[in-house]
Amino acid sequence: MTVLTDWQKQEVDRQMNLYCEGAAEVIPPEDLRQKVEQSLLEERPLRIKLGLDPSAPDVHFGHTVVLQKLRQFQENGHQVQLLIGDFTGRIGDPTGKSTARAPLTSEDVKQNARTYVEQFGKVLDMDQVTVHYNSSWLADLSFEEVIHLAGQITTARLLERDDFDERTALGKPIGLHEFFYPVMQGYDSVVLESDIEIGGTDQHYNTLMGRHFQERFKKAKQAVILMPLLEGLDGKEKMSKSKHNYVGVEDNPDEMFGKTMSVPDELMGRWFRLVSGFSSDHVDHLEAELKSGALHPREGKRLLAARMTELYHGKDAAEKAADRFDALYRDNKLPEEIPEHRTEAGLISPLDLLVESGLLHSKSEAKRMIANRGVKIDGARLETADESLRVRDGMVMQVGKRKHVRLKLSQ
Amino acid sequence: MTVLTDWQKQEVDRQMNLYCEGAAEVIPPEDLRQKVEQSLLEERPLRIKLGLDPSAPDVHFGHTVVLQKLRQFQENGHQVQLLIGDFTGRIGDPTGKSTARAPLTSEDVKQNARTYVEQFGKVLDMDQVTVHYNSSWLADLSFEEVIHLAGQITTARLLERDDFDERTALGKPIGLHEFFYPVMQGYDSVVLESDIEIGGTDQHYNTLMGRHFQERFKKAKQAVILMPLLEGLDGKEKMSKSKHNYVGVEDNPDEMFGKTMSVPDELMGRWFRLVSGFSSDHVDHLEAELKSGALHPREGKRLLAARMTELYHGKDAAEKAADRFDALYRDNKLPEEIPEHRTEAGLISPLDLLVESGLLHSKSEAKRMIANRGVKIDGARLETADESLRVRDGMVMQVGKRKHVRLKLSQ
Repeated sequence: MTVLTDWQKQEVDRQMNLYCEGAAEVIPPEDLRQKVEQSLLEERPLRIKLGLDPSAPDVHFGHTVVLQKLRQFQENGHQVQLLIGDFTGRIGDPTGKSTARAPLTSEDVKQNARTYVEQFGKVLDMDQVTVHYNSSWLADLSFEEVIHLAGQITTARLLERDDFDERTALGKPIGLHEFFYPVMQGYDSVVLESDIEIGGTDQHYNTLMGRHFQERFKKAKQAVILMPLLEGLDGKEKMSKSKHNYVGVEDNPDEMFGKTMSVPDELMGRWFRLVSGFSSDHVDHLEAELKSGALHPREGKRLLAARMTELYHGKDAAEKAADRFDALYRDNKLPEEIPEHRTEAGLISPLDLLVESGLLHSKSEAKRMIANRGVKIDGARLETADESLRVRDGMVMQVGKRKHVRLKLSQ
Repeated sequence: MTVLTDWQKQEVDRQMNLYCEGAAEVIPPEDLRQKVEQSLLEERPLRIKLGLDPSAPDVHFGHTVVLQKLRQFQENGHQVQLLIGDFTGRIGDPTGKSTARAPLTSEDVKQNARTYVEQFGKVLDMDQVTVHYNSSWLADLSFEEVIHLAGQITTARLLERDDFDERTALGKPIGLHEFFYPVMQGYDSVVLESDIEIGGTDQHYNTLMGRHFQERFKKAKQAVILMPLLEGLDGKEKMSKSKHNYVGVEDNPDEMFGKTMSVPDELMGRWFRLVSGFSSDHVDHLEAELKSGALHPREGKRLLAARMTELYHGKDAAEKAADRFDALYRDNKLPEEIPEHRTEAGLISPLDLLVESGLLHSKSEAKRMIANRGVKIDGARLETADESLRVRDGMVMQVGKRKHVRLKLSQ
């Protein structure tokens, strides 16, 4: 009954290699193997869980590391479960201390969830994805059921969480309610009967909660695959919206191409492996060529930028973006050294920006210059002074032939 | 408006003296004073809370220390609130325990609560007492409300609790659900709008939770009166059922009188002060007489035993118990030294007990001796060999004139 055929053994090995590829950690590999074996023997798709915080719906390349992993499962016939943590999001911070954690309305949550689904559709086949909201089982729990749930874990185990541990060491308070976030995340896996949970390495503790609670509730324990956190464009910190070092999947083709071109050379291999969707063999080949010098880093970067833009906007848009990028940076012969100007993220009037950056002396001068078609943003002529610009990090403003400023976002 | 008349000032002082009398700690005295002042100015009775764990319904003299304190409040027109922690009882009370307790069924809890109310009626005027069950507000809390409640306290504050602290140090697990016991106890004071909470010194932490949560919920903070824990008949450990060193308020007059007579001399003053219900002046007087030798310790003890028996069974029963005690221990001329025999608590056949204790050699001999009216238990003739005896600590078995054994319960 439970003996695998030779073909099945090969198939298990193939899937194991695929799923472990690029992962920072698989917990434990033998459980992952067992799940894959079961799915072959029982001819049932595995349930692959990804938990999502509904408060940050702007999906960027950092998120796509796990999405690409999910896509591999999907391509092998497994079932992706997106878990929207709307119950957690609805609570916010009950101490009222953190304004960042103001409770979301259920309308906010739904809107954010729709945004996720829309943006994830750029990587996943959303017809083959089930979307779950944890409020649908958590909101109805009674106090007695909550207590029962709480009885399944010790406070010592909860305090082991890295950030709790740090806060304890620093004497920084931890609200009792915060102990419930990992508990909820663990219980979600019980309800969903997840076979595998995918997350970033920062989800190590939370994803293990799923195994813990599944065991306490006498369910089969999920295997966990933790993916590395993608560094941002600065090459240092984890990609995140708040660090202004990200490429959003909704960025337009020019932004996406241009930003990807600014990835530090040493991260190029990592990006190819984690977010390009290229096969492992192909990435090995590219890395070898980069190493041998057969592929120049700049050409490698162009390949990466074109690939990423193609993934989210299609081949045609990617080619056009590449052409415009060349027009700006190669044909337009930007000087090697461009003065920088620090400014805030957000929308700003181009007149204000031209004056504030020192490119021009007054708004009236700026208005005239725009009317005379003498102002370019990233090589594209600015047509009107009446519409606000969305500032992005690295954006180049140019007045006439010789005056340039590169914008840097303040942290 | 808020100025007290001279009479009111005197009345505040009088009540303060009364309530602080015998207390181990008042937290803080200025809040207690303010509550008493308010009650006079606003002409409203204070709400005095006593929280009860419904898992241990056998009320003994140790419990009556707080009941006597409540009675003082009652006699001054205040309102006693008995809070039956029935919801909490479903979880178990971690106080003083090194391992988590098993939950009670809701039927157990109800039965235990009824027993409390019945037994408390021996000290308090139950017509002037309101009885509350915390399930009536806790059971209906939603998970979201629980989280809100949990957000009002930090885990560090919860871990400060002595027994949690010890268990953490010993590496013994604390279930997350156990953190909710003090949270519930605190929240109960919010709902009840308690002015004062009374408890034993072992309730220090829990009663302060009431102040904490009342403050977080923007209510006036209760004052706390902590009463000393009464030592048991062994004169060493806190009186408790499990230590077999207690006098139950439902003990029959003979047991009550006899057990009270075995209180160590040095505890007599403490018993008078904490559980006799005598006025402070009267206790001062008795202590002075004991010290000067005007009152012999044995007579003092008789007075205490008579008083305690009278409190729970009336004057007539107390006098009869005293007479029977005299018949047994004075007129019956028990030898000074009686051999002891250790045995288990519970029901046992008198035949087994007579043989096991070495008083007689066989069950047939024992049967004959009982039939011949030659066996006494605590001075009373044993009429039949057919009914099991309930063993109690210190019980004296006698065969004929000269053979005695005093039973000691094994721990």
